[in-house]
Amino acid sequence: MERTTLGELGTKKGEAVSVSGWIDVRRDHGKVLFLVLRDRSGTVQAVVKDGSDAFPVAQSVREQWVVQAEASVVERPEKMRKDEQNGDIELVISTLTVLSQAHELPFDMDAELNLDTLLDYRPLTLRRDRERAIFKVQAAIVAAYRTFLTAEGFTEFQAPKFVGDDAEGGGNIFKVEYFKDRYAYLATSPQLYKQIMVGVFERVFSIGNVFRAEKHATTRHLNEYTSLDVEMGFIEDHTSIMNMEERYMRFLMQHLEETCVHEFALLGATIPRIPATIPRMKLREAQALITEQTGKDCLNEPDLEPEHERWLCEWAQKEHSSDFIFITHYPTAKRPFYTYEDETDPGFTKSFDLLFRGVEITTGGQREHRLDTLIEKLTAKGLRPENFGFYLQAFKYGLPPHGGWGMGLERLTQKLLGLENVKEATLFPRDMNRIDSRLSETDDALEN
Amino acid sequence: MERTTLGELGTKKGEAVSVSGWIDVRRDHGKVLFLVLRDRSGTVQAVVKDGSDAFPVAQSVREQWVVQAEASVVERPEKMRKDEQNGDIELVISTLTVLSQAHELPFDMDAELNLDTLLDYRPLTLRRDRERAIFKVQAAIVAAYRTFLTAEGFTEFQAPKFVGDDAEGGGNIFKVEYFKDRYAYLATSPQLYKQIMVGVFERVFSIGNVFRAEKHATTRHLNEYTSLDVEMGFIEDHTSIMNMEERYMRFLMQHLEETCVHEFALLGATIPRIPATIPRMKLREAQALITEQTGKDCLNEPDLEPEHERWLCEWAQKEHSSDFIFITHYPTAKRPFYTYEDETDPGFTKSFDLLFRGVEITTGGQREHRLDTLIEKLTAKGLRPENFGFYLQAFKYGLPPHGGWGMGLERLTQKLLGLENVKEATLFPRDMNRIDSRLSETDDALEN
Repeated sequence: MERTTLGELGTKKGEAVSVSGWIDVRRDHGKVLFLVLRDRSGTVQAVVKDGSDAFPVAQSVREQWVVQAEASVVERPEKMRKDEQNGDIELVISTLTVLSQAHELPFDMDAELNLDTLLDYRPLTLRRDRERAIFKVQAAIVAAYRTFLTAEGFTEFQAPKFVGDDAEGGGNIFKVEYFKDRYAYLATSPQLYKQIMVGVFERVFSIGNVFRAEKHATTRHLNEYTSLDVEMGFIEDHTSIMNMEERYMRFLMQHLEETCVHEFALLGATIPRIPATIPRMKLREAQALITEQTGKDCLNEPDLEPEHERWLCEWAQKEHSSDFIFITHYPTAKRPFYTYEDETDPGFTKSFDLLFRGVEITTGGQREHRLDTLIEKLTAKGLRPENFGFYLQAFKYGLPPHGGWGMGLERLTQKLLGLENVKEATLFPRDMNRIDSRLSETDDALEN
Repeated sequence: MERTTLGELGTKKGEAVSVSGWIDVRRDHGKVLFLVLRDRSGTVQAVVKDGSDAFPVAQSVREQWVVQAEASVVERPEKMRKDEQNGDIELVISTLTVLSQAHELPFDMDAELNLDTLLDYRPLTLRRDRERAIFKVQAAIVAAYRTFLTAEGFTEFQAPKFVGDDAEGGGNIFKVEYFKDRYAYLATSPQLYKQIMVGVFERVFSIGNVFRAEKHATTRHLNEYTSLDVEMGFIEDHTSIMNMEERYMRFLMQHLEETCVHEFALLGATIPRIPATIPRMKLREAQALITEQTGKDCLNEPDLEPEHERWLCEWAQKEHSSDFIFITHYPTAKRPFYTYEDETDPGFTKSFDLLFRGVEITTGGQREHRLDTLIEKLTAKGLRPENFGFYLQAFKYGLPPHGGWGMGLERLTQKLLGLENVKEATLFPRDMNRIDSRLSETDDALEN
């Protein structure tokens, strides 16, 4: 019999079906066994009764075993119905076949696990309802990103990860043994390539991993993450980029309302509402506000401290009912060479951060598109224009005013879902201490 | 006035518009100047007449300059119409503003360029009609991949690029300086992760860069490329995967017919037709056929030589009107440890290659899902199961029969469009001799 997915069972009431999946829950009531089956489309409760061919098999199976079952789809009595997927039906299994066994689980699947256990057992813990909900939402963010940008005339491109040198000079870059005693480096962002691509397709986006050799071990940092990038030409200034991002965020929340309500409910998270306009202020205005209202002077700082980002988000929530706030005009000294300086506000840039629920989730802005000025800015940052010859071609042969943003997918997922640590929103997080296994344990294994 | 994209001009006949873009062509006829403008949505011919405010500006502009223009949309006389985008209209420009200048071009934009020149000037050459067509098709392949797989119940996931060791033992792996005198490696494929993800979402796909430290300098190899991956559970055997891929290919060609006819025409390429069933044969059957028909004995070879792949594709075209052919049952010795051995054909695997227009574009098959057998296979390949502890958890806690494929985006693009070298289908190709600039030149620059 052809397989029916569990998500299709609602249309098969009274029929005989063949289903396949994992045993998520098994409850033994003596003469009757209850199983919760899971496949890609959802879950269903099944019963196996003493006397059926399936009964001895059902007695032997355990959680996470993989099975195939012949069953009939029966409606539950009115008072047994639940307001959940397949809550009005259950499967009565007649034949049960084991496709794959599982070892005894190291913990209860709905136990509260500490972060190390969660990650040590990632291939298993990712199967939990909570983790599947997190990564369903993550896939939805990516899907919404593409749908929105494609409709806005953006073309997707594949950015290279190998780069020739530490272009932005930040130093937080991983070094790769390339060929013939030569080194290559891993891109910390697709920045230079997406600017080149503005010359080709005018509006481009890319989705891909970037690599930061930062020695941070915080709840917000990863050494490898997924960057959602955009770059667009023929803009007015940085506000064109902010407007586009505001529209994406509105589109995203609508998409999540339509596709992920169950996942948000399961995680106890709220889909944020976007006000008509997300509040916007210059960094110095923000600092003046913080200084005035908290009494702590931060007027001369070049950037926002984490506590200031949190304070501003609380302020935006209180004053504007907004989970988001744009901060603009960071000093030229704190922004990369390609950032556009505001002619009307020298020393400050047409750049922005988007803060959301206490942290920065996007950095963006207008870029310098004038070749001569760009070379001056490179030199002023102590970089050597001759190392940027390839990139500078894009400007030599004409680029319009342009700008864009970069946004970390995992951090956005984390903050949307109210997770404590960004690693919970990363399938296979890499940091100083872990690449799948803890690195100290790898040492042990290699020594054996 | 609000900007109108060139693709929207057809709906603005007789109206005044503001447009922006690059000068693709400039022809000086003395009292009248013809410009071809390009933006993200296409091109249009524009005229600037002596006496208009725009005329002296139009005299100064050159190819690739970036301009903004105020113009009126006029219909062309009947006999001047062309069968192309905006072929029935032209713009009469009244005001022309230069947004960005360009240096004199190093070559004619529609000249035939050798591969090195094409790549040395990538930021410029990507703007040519030919290159934009190639990467529009590439974006369409990716879009079709997502649309098709999402509709089939697949979930997209982000595969990590850093891996802890050379898991598959192939040796063609790049080494990264990680933290604390430790090395990490760059994934040659998302293989182990997509198998883990079968336990989570049952059907998954990923799109991302992979890295191969191969010292090849052929027309088919890249050291970094984009891999289109799929993995799915609850399969019958490898033919379930082949059936899914056949359906994707049919969907893709339909999508290209709908969205990329212009690009294929421009490149002189033909969208392939997929027969009702793509021919399928075992490697040994293919070898017997080759030996019989060409007289060259290849019966005892463990794999197909490039010339044999070409011969089989020609045969499939001649005998089955198919640009594609599946070859199955490669020997266990030639396939990775995770490949499923055919119980009915010991020594041979339930794996396949899909050949298309002379080369292999996909490798796929059923995977070993039984923990004990998998550990045996690892050991038999000289690998150490203790290095695979993380991956093996997926099997320890129950995985169904599953399989998948990996497909190189750039090679597929190359073969679809009939390009000679895969680098022509790669935005920023990386190889032994080039990361953007030629590596020998980088040495020169650094010595200065």
